[in-house]
Amino acid sequence: MFLEMISFESDYNNGAHPRVLQHLVETNAEKTVSYGGDVYSKRAADKIRAACDCLAADVFFLVGGTQTNQVVIDTLLRPYEGVVAADTGHISLHEAGAIEHGGHKVLALPHRDGRVDAADLRAYVRAFYADENHEHMVFPGMVYISHPTEYGTLYSKQELTDLAEVCREFGMRLYLDGARLGYALASYETDVTLADIARLCDAFYIGGTKVGALCGEALVFPKGAPNRFVTMVKQHGALVAKGRLIGVQFDALFTDDLYLTIGRHAIDMAEKLKAVLTEKGVPFYRKSPTNQQFVVLENSRLDALKENLGYSFWEMADDEHTVIRLATSWATDPADIERLRELF
Amino acid sequence: MFLEMISFESDYNNGAHPRVLQHLVETNAEKTVSYGGDVYSKRAADKIRAACDCLAADVFFLVGGTQTNQVVIDTLLRPYEGVVAADTGHISLHEAGAIEHGGHKVLALPHRDGRVDAADLRAYVRAFYADENHEHMVFPGMVYISHPTEYGTLYSKQELTDLAEVCREFGMRLYLDGARLGYALASYETDVTLADIARLCDAFYIGGTKVGALCGEALVFPKGAPNRFVTMVKQHGALVAKGRLIGVQFDALFTDDLYLTIGRHAIDMAEKLKAVLTEKGVPFYRKSPTNQQFVVLENSRLDALKENLGYSFWEMADDEHTVIRLATSWATDPADIERLRELF
Amino acid sequence: MFLEMISFESDYNNGAHPRVLQHLVETNAEKTVSYGGDVYSKRAADKIRAACDCLAADVFFLVGGTQTNQVVIDTLLRPYEGVVAADTGHISLHEAGAIEHGGHKVLALPHRDGRVDAADLRAYVRAFYADENHEHMVFPGMVYISHPTEYGTLYSKQELTDLAEVCREFGMRLYLDGARLGYALASYETDVTLADIARLCDAFYIGGTKVGALCGEALVFPKGAPNRFVTMVKQHGALVAKGRLIGVQFDALFTDDLYLTIGRHAIDMAEKLKAVLTEKGVPFYRKSPTNQQFVVLENSRLDALKENLGYSFWEMADDEHTVIRLATSWATDPADIERLRELF
Amino acid sequence: MFLEMISFESDYNNGAHPRVLQHLVETNAEKTVSYGGDVYSKRAADKIRAACDCLAADVFFLVGGTQTNQVVIDTLLRPYEGVVAADTGHISLHEAGAIEHGGHKVLALPHRDGRVDAADLRAYVRAFYADENHEHMVFPGMVYISHPTEYGTLYSKQELTDLAEVCREFGMRLYLDGARLGYALASYETDVTLADIARLCDAFYIGGTKVGALCGEALVFPKGAPNRFVTMVKQHGALVAKGRLIGVQFDALFTDDLYLTIGRHAIDMAEKLKAVLTEKGVPFYRKSPTNQQFVVLENSRLDALKENLGYSFWEMADDEHTVIRLATSWATDPADIERLRELF
Repeated sequence: MFLEMISFESDYNNGAHPRVLQHLVETNAEKTVSYGGDVYSKRAADKIRAACDCLAADVFFLVGGTQTNQVVIDTLLRPYEGVVAADTGHISLHEAGAIEHGGHKVLALPHRDGRVDAADLRAYVRAFYADENHEHMVFPGMVYISHPTEYGTLYSKQELTDLAEVCREFGMRLYLDGARLGYALASYETDVTLADIARLCDAFYIGGTKVGALCGEALVFPKGAPNRFVTMVKQHGALVAKGRLIGVQFDALFTDDLYLTIGRHAIDMAEKLKAVLTEKGVPFYRKSPTNQQFVVLENSRLDALKENLGYSFWEMADDEHTVIRLATSWATDPADIERLRELF
Repeated sequence: MFLEMISFESDYNNGAHPRVLQHLVETNAEKTVSYGGDVYSKRAADKIRAACDCLAADVFFLVGGTQTNQVVIDTLLRPYEGVVAADTGHISLHEAGAIEHGGHKVLALPHRDGRVDAADLRAYVRAFYADENHEHMVFPGMVYISHPTEYGTLYSKQELTDLAEVCREFGMRLYLDGARLGYALASYETDVTLADIARLCDAFYIGGTKVGALCGEALVFPKGAPNRFVTMVKQHGALVAKGRLIGVQFDALFTDDLYLTIGRHAIDMAEKLKAVLTEKGVPFYRKSPTNQQFVVLENSRLDALKENLGYSFWEMADDEHTVIRLATSWATDPADIERLRELF
Repeated sequence: MFLEMISFESDYNNGAHPRVLQHLVETNAEKTVSYGGDVYSKRAADKIRAACDCLAADVFFLVGGTQTNQVVIDTLLRPYEGVVAADTGHISLHEAGAIEHGGHKVLALPHRDGRVDAADLRAYVRAFYADENHEHMVFPGMVYISHPTEYGTLYSKQELTDLAEVCREFGMRLYLDGARLGYALASYETDVTLADIARLCDAFYIGGTKVGALCGEALVFPKGAPNRFVTMVKQHGALVAKGRLIGVQFDALFTDDLYLTIGRHAIDMAEKLKAVLTEKGVPFYRKSPTNQQFVVLENSRLDALKENLGYSFWEMADDEHTVIRLATSWATDPADIERLRELF
Repeated sequence: MFLEMISFESDYNNGAHPRVLQHLVETNAEKTVSYGGDVYSKRAADKIRAACDCLAADVFFLVGGTQTNQVVIDTLLRPYEGVVAADTGHISLHEAGAIEHGGHKVLALPHRDGRVDAADLRAYVRAFYADENHEHMVFPGMVYISHPTEYGTLYSKQELTDLAEVCREFGMRLYLDGARLGYALASYETDVTLADIARLCDAFYIGGTKVGALCGEALVFPKGAPNRFVTMVKQHGALVAKGRLIGVQFDALFTDDLYLTIGRHAIDMAEKLKAVLTEKGVPFYRKSPTNQQFVVLENSRLDALKENLGYSFWEMADDEHTVIRLATSWATDPADIERLRELF
């Protein structure tokens, strides 16, 4: 990948949002206790609990998304359980086997525009328990969803509620990967709030790395964390000594609605981008209401664009076409979208 | 632990060294590729190779020490091998079973002032292979040492050479945990250089978290990394999306000898601290030539100090005495040492 | 499942073939060394090497099939690799996550009558390496096939050769699960010999449990076993103290062609069974040339048969039809097939 | 090891006790359901529950000792817990890292004649919880003891009661490895019954492999097994398809007190052996009241004996002396003890 003037290759190709960085700078000289016991981590957790309208929640700060997925799935599943996910889910495809490394199978269901469908899920779990040999199979113990999904699509409140209902019915936990949650919350087309998520899920994380932080994800257990959770985080090599690094950043992100502000700018830019691409007749691979847009280009055209456009390869559509991803972020400059118009 | 005006509780209780932070600030607006492919990570790796006088080395940046230990040990050991360490080693005691979580036994040898002794090691490994049942036992595949050790002590060049010799003799790898390597290199009493370490070890890491960075450790494989190492890092949940976060910091740490400068200040302060404690007749638990000093205090005296002195509990010496650790860092203010004199 | 006079529910519902049992009885009083070093295990290994026309092979005896799959896959895969299998493969579905428990992902391909297709495999692996993000994905390191498959179907020599060719091309190992290998070798419709398997695979096992033994599988590494294999078997809890138990049985199974004799009887009986079922107009779910036959029955008819017929539930065909398995073995009495004719 | 006429090298160097074998022969032609659901496994479980005076117990049959230890420890421990054992314990030394393979640390305490001492245990656990950093350490979740121990020694009823008391106090489970339990129960010097063990332990196994069976251990959970235990056994590759193989054997072992009869013969023989060795002035390494006797011999004398005596190497006592083990079993011929007298 080559980085050019017009950069849409990802939402983690820059540093931190200036207000996040500023908070790191202004707190740098202070001395704090380690391993997340510092005042900034506590303050950030309080603000997150308030934003989730869930005072009983336990909040932890981890460094990255795959790490958070691995730790949550390992600690919420029993040894004989696996995690159900869309076959396009991040844990199904792009975590190098991190979930299996922890001993658990990913039970993949065919995705529906990137989503797990509640009816599919119920059918799968019913068939599992109806199978006379299910004692020899991996029990479905959790459902993993990403919101936005890997295709930028979203769950509606009704869809989330339906999934939570199936989970309750069969004793499964519901876990939401919110690596780009800011863009979901800010989408023009969502009816799902942070409070809804906290009410419906057993665990979820609010992504920082891809939403304005240098690093870090805020993991929320609305009904409380597993016993000895910090020890298990340590055991996974995931406990940060200077925990304030993430606490300070989330303290900034959840002050004066910065997290939503970041999400909104990216969404505004994505809508402009969609308008330009539509105007130019570029076909979309999937309809996405969030900051990631997937379009299909002829390979020859892509070759011509490469020098001036930063994008991410997604997959081959066919021998002559490629699916690419264009992503916006807090750092996207509206001028770049105008320049993109000229490129196409 | 309560944080007071006089703060010696750890070397990771503050933010980053100002020059490290400054480099993060000045590079914040740039766009870079992700997962460690950015120009700062590459530049930092080059500078580290030069500092180690080892151009063939592979260098990777990870977030924390336990994580690095876990990844290195998992990827360098074969499934039937364990790692030999001092019984006081960080991996033996204070990583919540992270090594066993990866499937490997820690084969503990009695420490010698925190060190693994080459003669002990040879005797252990010889006895292993002499045992007719050793096919039913865990093979010693690696030796883990920390430098400085958990007691602040150091290996001499001869001791390191002897360990490396035993390792070569029995096909074991030698791995050095350099969480506080800066303080070892800057010690008044060391004859070991970074180039010595690169020459003698199969892997080691140069600690950042405890030596001036916000987070991050630079992992060095002088003879090259295991095949598909990045994939295995990802599998451990340890691959950082915005890899530049650590690359930028190590770029600063290895510019104009900042890493050594940080080490030297901490060592100078530690020597002053030792002088004051000696003057005050406070007994040392261990003699340490680095930035961590261990002293034994009566519990009653400790209670009196608590309000004004930040320290770390280490262990109970007996029912009436406690071992505490006092640590210096780049941020230690000489004035605090004077104030400590008045406290005692 | 209820056991009736007419028993076709499995090929492991009885004890051992009389000659196998006899050998256990006649050697019972002898004293032998343990852990597989005994003369019977050695003799059995020699006979297997001869039968495979592969004198360089390493042969080990393990207790069961899932155990053997787990040990082989764990010890032949590198940590970053997964195993490709049909989505109907035993390791994909019916081993309770034993492969994931060892840290490896099962990469499921759509089955073709229970088989992995070489062209599908090549397409999958090519797409993997063509994907720019494959460093974040699980590498295909091995191909698992069962022969006969879970549907009783077989690979032809050409199909095996094609799979081996793809494996060689991409550095993957080829592993054949021969839980019912005796029935494959004795099928009227096969052109694959034990020597072919030894020539084409990196590992395979010759099933005993389902082919006349009380327990036990003979694991063969035609090109030699992984280093320290016995230690890794022990580490998996799979090393049998009184190893002769399995050695003696395989010594009997590979004396005077008993293994083939057992296979042939079961196949003869299966062909008779197929003739009767065809005559009675019972629809087959899959065409199987081995000892397992899969037929589709109306649920009401199945209810009526239940009292007099031992069978295995396989899966629901639809709401009103069920797929059942009827299996023959060395112990199948031709008279039972006549009685089955009357039942239908 | 060379097998000679006088054979004391182990208690698993022969086949099965004739009555065990006889039961296998007489049930061989019957058809039974698989995976432990057969009538013999159920009958054996009932007899074991009666022998343990514990009608609520769950009983399972596994193949071997290391496997049983691995499965029990994996399924009873939480992820953040380790298992406390004597440093001479089988799981500490001679299972090739099977416990660590399952992700758990073995927390070794110095042995007392092979035993874990309750006072040592309490001191260890108290120190653990008193340590301010214990959140970064492996929690002691279980105590593993072997009875007889690896040195043939036994716990008294008081010692077992004391251990159980410490376990209850700190929420740890107590697990007893009874690989040679028959010899403990039959010892002249024990006051511990099977009912005592069932009352005091959370899990234990009654060894078959080394007490007259071809293979197999009976695992007992007096207070009930972990949820979905069979699935977890399968996941460990430890579920036996033809489960009756072990069920039939334990049905025989627990009929007409055969298990105790076997134990008693071995103990009678061991006492005779001790008398002869004492008479001959051979020094004992440890005083053992069970079927394993440990003596110290000059290496030169051992060389002379080798051709006529089967024994097991245990460890080097010093450069010129070796500790060997002589073991009796149900198959020990009194005449062999007389012949041993002549050898010495």
